[in-house]
Amino acid sequence: MINVLVGSTVLPGNLEAVLEIYRELVARTRNEPGCVSYELLQLREDPCDLMLLECWLSQEHLDAHTRTPHFVEAIAQLEMLETAAPALIYTKSV
Amino acid sequence: MINVLVGSTVLPGNLEAVLEIYRELVARTRNEPGCVSYELLQLREDPCDLMLLECWLSQEHLDAHTRTPHFVEAIAQLEMLETAAPALIYTKSV
Repeated sequence: MINVLVGSTVLPGNLEAVLEIYRELVARTRNEPGCVSYELLQLREDPCDLMLLECWLSQEHLDAHTRTPHFVEAIAQLEMLETAAPALIYTKSV
Repeated sequence: MINVLVGSTVLPGNLEAVLEIYRELVARTRNEPGCVSYELLQLREDPCDLMLLECWLSQEHLDAHTRTPHFVEAIAQLEMLETAAPALIYTKSV
């Protein structure tokens, strides 16, 4: 099982468009094999500071996710609207 | 419902001691009222890079958690063994 954290920041004027893209991405991704959880969080102090919080059964499931058409399309759209940090991959410790 | 992320870094020589403190903290915290989930992650590329991933029913439950003896005691011990970033509080978006 692996956890993935992807932080990103959005200009306020782009926030609604970005959230709309995430809504579709999240809904489709949750139906993928090996997806344990997949949710988008917004920092309480600044809703334009986003965190994608993912949990996958395995690296192979995560890899397959990144090849799905809905992922590839969402990333292409998001790249123009947000600044994302590299994905951080964690394993559960305790 | 609120999500809390707390990143920290540990010197390799302190890692086992730190994980032992977290083991007890995690076990006790999961029994607290309002604790939806509470887990410690380790960065896959660097196990000394930790992330505490919390989900609470409300801010009030989180506040009560920070006043429990096991939390106060664990933090006092951890402060000497790790460098923690400020807690980031998120709300679920999508």
